[in-house]
Amino acid sequence: MEKYIDLALKEAKKAYEKDEVPIGAVIVKDGVVISKAHNLKEKNCSVTKHAELIAIERACKKLKNWRLDGCDIYVTLEPCPMCASAIQQARIQSVYYGVGCGNSETSAIVEKIFHTVDRNKPVAEIVNCENAQCKDLLQKYFKEKRSTNL
Amino acid sequence: MEKYIDLALKEAKKAYEKDEVPIGAVIVKDGVVISKAHNLKEKNCSVTKHAELIAIERACKKLKNWRLDGCDIYVTLEPCPMCASAIQQARIQSVYYGVGCGNSETSAIVEKIFHTVDRNKPVAEIVNCENAQCKDLLQKYFKEKRSTNL
Repeated sequence: MEKYIDLALKEAKKAYEKDEVPIGAVIVKDGVVISKAHNLKEKNCSVTKHAELIAIERACKKLKNWRLDGCDIYVTLEPCPMCASAIQQARIQSVYYGVGCGNSETSAIVEKIFHTVDRNKPVAEIVNCENAQCKDLLQKYFKEKRSTNL
Repeated sequence: MEKYIDLALKEAKKAYEKDEVPIGAVIVKDGVVISKAHNLKEKNCSVTKHAELIAIERACKKLKNWRLDGCDIYVTLEPCPMCASAIQQARIQSVYYGVGCGNSETSAIVEKIFHTVDRNKPVAEIVNCENAQCKDLLQKYFKEKRSTNL
């Protein structure tokens, strides 16, 4: 688990270098990394360019299937509702995230989305890895942003 | 309002012709159509290729901004949580949809997402247009699918 969160963190650092909110994601199937991505919202001028959505698109392209059965996602920050719903609809098995989003209202929505059954299976496992490095990188980014904006 | 729902329906018909779930979306700013899209999930093998997400990406590209302030979206079916969250994060002003999704659990999640304030503004207006043609097209599609699968 730590190995893949570290890989996601490496992706998050790429986002940081591009002055993007430092979030990274990795999708793994049967111990093989299927896709990696980092947040590119500002560079691509679109809210859809979150790390998780790009990673899902790449994984789907690789597997030539929108059903990512048996895949797990590792992401440095708890997914937003958009990404949580994409994860659930893509039938991703388990979600491991480095740090919680810190907004209880959003977390409650995300939790509900992951447990939605609909015609699909709900997400099997959701784990907060409480990774200090993921948290530190985000805090560093926002601290620098605030000092620049003073 | 009817004019733009009709345009979205025209997009939905394009999806139907491609054997996709017939859903279409149109984004409008100051009376000008900024983008149009239809569902391409099967063709592109990705859950991210919903009509709304493609329409948002096209609108962002056109306006060179991820903030779609002052834009309204017209979509033939009530958005799923993924698309609802993208709409909210993109700061779209109002949402007009042709027909409800028919799942009260999902609708409740979507409602919550639209009213999330976070650092952004919540969606100002959400209107179910109760458009019979949007409903008929979806019913026709699923009826044909079921009969094919018998």
